[in-house]
Amino acid sequence: MKLKFAAAFLASAIAMPAHADVLIDNVTGITMDADGKVKRFEALVIDDDGKIAQVIERGQERPRTDYREDGEGRVMIPGIIDAHAHVMGVGFGALTLDLSDTNSLEEALDKIRTFAAENEARPWILGRGWNQEKWGLGRFPTAEELDSAVSDRPVYLARVDGHAGWANSLAMRAAGITADTKSPSGGRIEKLADGKTPSGIFVDAAEQLMNAAVPAPRPIERDLAFIEAQKVLHSFGITAVADMGTTIEDWQAFRRAGDNGSLTLRIMSYAAGPDQMTLISGARPSLWLYDDKLRMNGVKLYLDGALGSRGAWLKQPYSDDPHNNGLPLMAPAQLRNVLVRAAQGGFQPAVHAIGTAANAEALAAIGEIAESFDGDRRWRIEHVQIVDPADLPKLAEHGIISSMQPVHQTSDMFMAEARLGEDRLEGAYAWNTILEMGGRLAFGSDTPVESPDPFAGFAAAITRSNAAGEPFGGWRATERVTREQALSGFTADAAYAGFAEGRFGRLLPGERADFVLVDVDPLLATPEEIRGTKVLETWVGGQKVYDAD
Amino acid sequence: MKLKFAAAFLASAIAMPAHADVLIDNVTGITMDADGKVKRFEALVIDDDGKIAQVIERGQERPRTDYREDGEGRVMIPGIIDAHAHVMGVGFGALTLDLSDTNSLEEALDKIRTFAAENEARPWILGRGWNQEKWGLGRFPTAEELDSAVSDRPVYLARVDGHAGWANSLAMRAAGITADTKSPSGGRIEKLADGKTPSGIFVDAAEQLMNAAVPAPRPIERDLAFIEAQKVLHSFGITAVADMGTTIEDWQAFRRAGDNGSLTLRIMSYAAGPDQMTLISGARPSLWLYDDKLRMNGVKLYLDGALGSRGAWLKQPYSDDPHNNGLPLMAPAQLRNVLVRAAQGGFQPAVHAIGTAANAEALAAIGEIAESFDGDRRWRIEHVQIVDPADLPKLAEHGIISSMQPVHQTSDMFMAEARLGEDRLEGAYAWNTILEMGGRLAFGSDTPVESPDPFAGFAAAITRSNAAGEPFGGWRATERVTREQALSGFTADAAYAGFAEGRFGRLLPGERADFVLVDVDPLLATPEEIRGTKVLETWVGGQKVYDAD
Repeated sequence: MKLKFAAAFLASAIAMPAHADVLIDNVTGITMDADGKVKRFEALVIDDDGKIAQVIERGQERPRTDYREDGEGRVMIPGIIDAHAHVMGVGFGALTLDLSDTNSLEEALDKIRTFAAENEARPWILGRGWNQEKWGLGRFPTAEELDSAVSDRPVYLARVDGHAGWANSLAMRAAGITADTKSPSGGRIEKLADGKTPSGIFVDAAEQLMNAAVPAPRPIERDLAFIEAQKVLHSFGITAVADMGTTIEDWQAFRRAGDNGSLTLRIMSYAAGPDQMTLISGARPSLWLYDDKLRMNGVKLYLDGALGSRGAWLKQPYSDDPHNNGLPLMAPAQLRNVLVRAAQGGFQPAVHAIGTAANAEALAAIGEIAESFDGDRRWRIEHVQIVDPADLPKLAEHGIISSMQPVHQTSDMFMAEARLGEDRLEGAYAWNTILEMGGRLAFGSDTPVESPDPFAGFAAAITRSNAAGEPFGGWRATERVTREQALSGFTADAAYAGFAEGRFGRLLPGERADFVLVDVDPLLATPEEIRGTKVLETWVGGQKVYDAD
Repeated sequence: MKLKFAAAFLASAIAMPAHADVLIDNVTGITMDADGKVKRFEALVIDDDGKIAQVIERGQERPRTDYREDGEGRVMIPGIIDAHAHVMGVGFGALTLDLSDTNSLEEALDKIRTFAAENEARPWILGRGWNQEKWGLGRFPTAEELDSAVSDRPVYLARVDGHAGWANSLAMRAAGITADTKSPSGGRIEKLADGKTPSGIFVDAAEQLMNAAVPAPRPIERDLAFIEAQKVLHSFGITAVADMGTTIEDWQAFRRAGDNGSLTLRIMSYAAGPDQMTLISGARPSLWLYDDKLRMNGVKLYLDGALGSRGAWLKQPYSDDPHNNGLPLMAPAQLRNVLVRAAQGGFQPAVHAIGTAANAEALAAIGEIAESFDGDRRWRIEHVQIVDPADLPKLAEHGIISSMQPVHQTSDMFMAEARLGEDRLEGAYAWNTILEMGGRLAFGSDTPVESPDPFAGFAAAITRSNAAGEPFGGWRATERVTREQALSGFTADAAYAGFAEGRFGRLLPGERADFVLVDVDPLLATPEEIRGTKVLETWVGGQKVYDAD
């Protein structure tokens, strides 16, 4: 580390002394302090272990250090912590076809056709990011439409939310899907108008029928994807993530990077279910490995699906699909059994709950179980999107953490109105109410479902408006949070949500020197300026891991 | 490390300086040197990293060091490296019923009955080590006999060589075994005299039918077993092993120990097949982890079974079973495919081959493939027990390593005569011929199939006689090796076989300070004295990990 540090700071080759402190002076520094308040500072001293030795405020004397860097007045904020991300998904996404910028079915088919032509060696064409809502299609696309773009190879493309997939005919043939294939429990094979022929769309648990046929990535592809994911995330100022749904293959890729010194992202890992948890970590959470860069914290559980594919589990039927309440993905006894098993080992459960019924069930299960376990458990609920107002106070009990993604609110708001109707949205994305009731938030992006850009999330959090400024004044604007709460949600609170407080998330003595240099002060700039924030440099543990130049 | 070192050497509490060298003086030191010759020395200096800084011969001046330990003239040899062991098997063996000391079926049944009574909480009774040959039974035992000892719970007991298992009726019921269950390819469900009823004995691939029904150990049991394995191995002077058949669960237990600082055994790991290899290590062998304590080197492949259960694959039928040639466990194309896949990633294949046909096939496959791969590959054949004399010269080609277990020769010699007849034993356990032809040996124990005691192996290697001194003058005594070759086989050569030369295996400057203090000089003592060697202390990386007191 010492040598890399030297390389970053020194043009000339000077032998480094055994213990080298570095002063980064002349920055517009912002951090949450130990009391949860904003603290401003002008300089930092980083020690040889990549930790913060001293935080220097205006007018304070600078210590004598071995090296000094001039921050040129740039804004320094703590490294962003994304409390809900899918790291390998980001990496594979970066290596596969991305349809998230397509605005019509025709545009998507053109992009698919071009990608297939440019990637002739690939036996399958894989991609993600399509959204029939954004296309204004009013229905799912079909296999036949996909065949019109690519008919010589299997094609399988995940929907933007990951809760549905779109296959062409060869892909369905490879998976053995016929008119006789039954929809699995918790999922749905969409049918054409004849009610028999599979349409090419596989929802929730039915996706597994297709995914089983897709060739698994080779380890070298996993390693490439992981390095790509780190690059992407660092370029957005992200220095740490909670990885939601780590498999043993993912974990091994993280460890390989840790072992060979290429791990630069801090990962708080939540295993993809209890079996993966046990396989990866054994009887207890792992230690903090690689200088606080990797820990298996707990286990990710899926209690329901997503709103877009109407898989979210609601107390009352969907307004735009009156015979459908969505799907619970775990039975009550199974959920409680897994929660108890995790908690007995000291693992932290993180329960995906989107719809009102799923959130009520997660809260009920945690409420029943929490009394039996001593200590600081930090039960996590992931997304907490649509909560029955009657259930909202329970989010402040038992140390529960509401792990939420501000950008989901601006992406989903109009769809949520269609799915639920205006009068069932009082507990929707209810950030401010949760805080006011005494609950704890942690903010993230759910990338690659959304862009990992935390400044888009920050702007959404303080405005409840999307990039176009819609709706004017904000959607259900009383649920806005303050700038300070938004900053804390993406830094100190996201660290706390993963038991990382004191290790990273704030720029305070003893914490890891993870920070971002940006061109905008998020506590003073307009929301539009915040959305346009340029990440200049990203640093992890006192090392520069991204430089916009 | 420093503190533990201090604890070992200092009665009084003195603060350690930053860099502490330790002189261990007044030992009767023996090691292989860089030229493969024996070197004697009187003192060692160990540096703060647990490596050897200096080796001091008779009459040489002692340097000034921070600490000094008096070896009191005791014999110091390099830490023993067991080139073929099953680490978790040793650990689980230490935690389960051990029948290896039983001399009759009745004695075994008594021991099983007592163990079951003493372990009422265990839902299954598991164990290993029985040997119907040693019992003089002349046939396999039966489920009915086992029922007479334990009938209230399932019981499943592995044969001493791990190539057969013995179940009681409840265990077979739990596994769903009936008269209609077919023997799988590569295995055999033994039948009673009626030719239909399963007898309770499951050979080779058929063992999987039973093992699938045995509840998997919980991670905490794995961790306990691993710590137990380290203790057992260190007590025999073993500081490093080649672990033959590492699963992802085993690997995770090794890593947990490495992560929390309790890993004291050096493990050169060979994955349990190509899928586990890829899952554990990705596209390439792992780095050396935890200061040279763990590396995934390659992949273990099974080409045949064992002689005892007549699973070893022979060119001609068994003398005592004229319609049986044993079983090949991999098809020719499959073997070559896996060898190529491993070699392309830089992994080292280690092919289990016991019988003449298996050894011929391993040699043929390696011969065909080796030319296509540059570099130093060290293709390993494990056991190399019965080789057609016509094939012996091929063991000196392509840098092949014959990884052999001297104690197998003395354990198996009379059985081998029964299985093969006197006139087919010219290439049996042919250590000296292999060396004379220019081949390379590495010695191990195959523990828990045999005791891990390397001094029993050492004595067998130089005498070809068993502990009773039989046969007088040695069995096929021209295949004896010298004391120096035996020492090298269990130290420097075993390190070379795992690409660890220069890291450990010799007591030379720059290598890890892994050594054993014993009460016998193996180069001077009688074979009987060598068999009786007492391990006084075992040290790994400059730390004491076992003390007989």
